[in-house]
Amino acid sequence: MDFSSELKIYQEKISTELDMFFSKKLRQAADLDPQITGLIRKVREFNLRGGKRIRPILVIIGYRCLRYKKNEISQLIRAALAVELMESFLLIHDDIIDNDSLRRGKPTLHKLYEKENSNKDYGKNMALLAGDLLAVFGSEAILNTGFDHKLKAGAVKKFNNIVVNTIFGQTLDYTGNFTRDFSESYIKRVHMLKTAKYTVEGPLHIGAILAGAKQKHLDRISEFAIPIGQAFQIKDDILNIFGDQEKLGKPVASDIKEGKKTLLIAKALENSNLKQRLYIKSCLRNKSLKPKQLEKLKNIIISTASLDYSNHLAESLINQAKLSIKSSGFRKQAKQFLLNLADYIINRDK
Amino acid sequence: MDFSSELKIYQEKISTELDMFFSKKLRQAADLDPQITGLIRKVREFNLRGGKRIRPILVIIGYRCLRYKKNEISQLIRAALAVELMESFLLIHDDIIDNDSLRRGKPTLHKLYEKENSNKDYGKNMALLAGDLLAVFGSEAILNTGFDHKLKAGAVKKFNNIVVNTIFGQTLDYTGNFTRDFSESYIKRVHMLKTAKYTVEGPLHIGAILAGAKQKHLDRISEFAIPIGQAFQIKDDILNIFGDQEKLGKPVASDIKEGKKTLLIAKALENSNLKQRLYIKSCLRNKSLKPKQLEKLKNIIISTASLDYSNHLAESLINQAKLSIKSSGFRKQAKQFLLNLADYIINRDK
Repeated sequence: MDFSSELKIYQEKISTELDMFFSKKLRQAADLDPQITGLIRKVREFNLRGGKRIRPILVIIGYRCLRYKKNEISQLIRAALAVELMESFLLIHDDIIDNDSLRRGKPTLHKLYEKENSNKDYGKNMALLAGDLLAVFGSEAILNTGFDHKLKAGAVKKFNNIVVNTIFGQTLDYTGNFTRDFSESYIKRVHMLKTAKYTVEGPLHIGAILAGAKQKHLDRISEFAIPIGQAFQIKDDILNIFGDQEKLGKPVASDIKEGKKTLLIAKALENSNLKQRLYIKSCLRNKSLKPKQLEKLKNIIISTASLDYSNHLAESLINQAKLSIKSSGFRKQAKQFLLNLADYIINRDK
Repeated sequence: MDFSSELKIYQEKISTELDMFFSKKLRQAADLDPQITGLIRKVREFNLRGGKRIRPILVIIGYRCLRYKKNEISQLIRAALAVELMESFLLIHDDIIDNDSLRRGKPTLHKLYEKENSNKDYGKNMALLAGDLLAVFGSEAILNTGFDHKLKAGAVKKFNNIVVNTIFGQTLDYTGNFTRDFSESYIKRVHMLKTAKYTVEGPLHIGAILAGAKQKHLDRISEFAIPIGQAFQIKDDILNIFGDQEKLGKPVASDIKEGKKTLLIAKALENSNLKQRLYIKSCLRNKSLKPKQLEKLKNIIISTASLDYSNHLAESLINQAKLSIKSSGFRKQAKQFLLNLADYIINRDK
């Protein structure tokens, strides 16, 4: 089976399981108020919008690095929902903070709620509650499986640890909007906290812990998970500016409009002349950036060799990760999947 | 030892343990950004403002209903922090939603952050992240203890369950602001979700689960925990209007100014004449309610026998709970503590 077919099968299994998870929640809340069932329906719709499902798939792969018991896979998929629910929780709150209106090709959750009531804070307040709910559903997904209690307790601890790191990263990212610090080291610290640990290392670790991993196994996983995660973020930042809006499901160049500190911008600022530098700064946080202005900005990012720098860095991180995967003692099929994943991350267009 | 001395000893132990919890978090984050340590410092200060510590004390009592091993008590206190951290998480988010400026006698967390940055959303956005962090710290407090993994997994499941119910209650409470439904049954449903389960039953259950409780023990606890919790809320609503601002640490009559649906108001509306009814409605959501207007409102609540109704209902719930405690087969000291607590709840002035 080729990689994209394999990915698709996992994605479908996870969507089915997510649907079942929320259907059960709706049944349990059936005798409660319509406002409560409405809340659950909204978060279900948000979770079922799709997305790449990279994180839950990595839980499965983390497990399969060390172990493969066919009769445990259905439990494992149920546990893997945890990181998908976590992502939705964090995205819903992120969208409140960043005032975003589009997510996964549809209105953000607070935008959906805004339509229901004219009170100006209603949308954000309801989305705040919705996010809180999903935070709890996340660890519940792990605890409701049949794995050994010690493994489940370890997996929830890791789950918590990922959330804490991501919140720290988000704190840096958000407060960074108000400082002039555009240093590479600062940006890399945010990447480490917000992406590498959150998107790749954390989910792989949760799966590995459920397979009974020891610390040395987790360390081995980190060796390739961190560079893959860093490459993932760099690629994300490139796609945000150079990608296609329809494929991305969100407005292109949103990072620029928000003034987000990306490596792409940091390097362009570093390598540009005064005139270019002033132009870049005039684009940052310009909410009504025109397509023509974006084209000019893209040209500066290209001519200052900043795009090349980011592309090369991402490639080199991916190569480093692949070497580490190849030399690890993990199970063959999981290794192959990870190698394919590494290529996918660098070659994707969404 | 008299009850208030016993309460004070527990309160101090919990405060000390909370301080240690956050000191450890600060040490662990020492090499991270000042924004991150600043966030941890703010939530520490918020948690150490005091408060009654009723919830963590109830975790200890829930355990002591079934078991008393002296060498487990220090672990138990560490686990009990979970419900205190949960309360802070929910309060910080509640204060965002309700736009409150005072909590535990000091500025709410978003108000503290508002002072640091002129961006109009900064305060609420940072407080959102702070609340999210505490949500995770809560279940971590349970998982980091030395109890058996099965007991810890059970306690975290209960923890999650309490948060879900409280969020449902908060959803009803908040959306209720936009409807005209002032029915007693609606108010009681909110009480059940937001207070009885959250403040009393849940913490007792967590403690009991850590002592190895079976379902029948949990059911027995619910029999008195729910009426105690309901009485607690009714008393809270009375204090909010008839209490003393300095003792409460928050502005008096905030419920009226927010238009909160309390039994006190529901009964007053039910029993009043047209003129009184219009007056009550003119006070609800009047953010600049004058002391003189409040006095007139209080007189209506008294003359319609609504205050009596609430007081009697709270007393009858407390008596019901006390009968149930006395007839339970739990350990003597825990029973005595619960009986004292029941009296304390009805007689308190803050």
